Amino acid sequence: MADVQIRFGERLRAVRQQRGISQEKLAELAGLHRTYVSSIERGERNVSLVNIERLAAALGVAMAELMPDEAKPPAS
Amino acid sequence: MADVQIRFGERLRAVRQQRGISQEKLAELAGLHRTYVSSIERGERNVSLVNIERLAAALGVAMAELMPDEAKPPAS
Repeated sequence: MADVQIRFGERLRAVRQQRGISQEKLAELAGLHRTYVSSIERGERNVSLVNIERLAAALGVAMAELMPDEAKPPAS
Repeated sequence: MADVQIRFGERLRAVRQQRGISQEKLAELAGLHRTYVSSIERGERNVSLVNIERLAAALGVAMAELMPDEAKPPAS
């Protein structure tokens, strides 16, 4: 698993939890499978633009907000 | 082609040109094929996290800087 996948998964989970949304609800809002969202959060997926955009839209944040840049402060 | 792919391609090209780097040089720096970088800029690729990170590192920008959020000002 690429480190960037791990960091993206952590970032996604942090933003999702901040918003008080379950994995199941996020999956429903984004039109993705719950198991897929779960595997993203575990860092197992090399998520691409189309799904990054879906996840960001479902969470009501900019795509840039989900990017796991090292300099970004912890979201939790 | 997804709209987000088009917007990402435009964003990548704008940032690359701002830095005065050729497609060929960017490809070399990112460890990607020149034809692949070209197709990304044409909006033909659903680029994933690992390659977004490579491109950002090669350009010396944060991954978030490459995200084509609608609210982002034109980079050109």
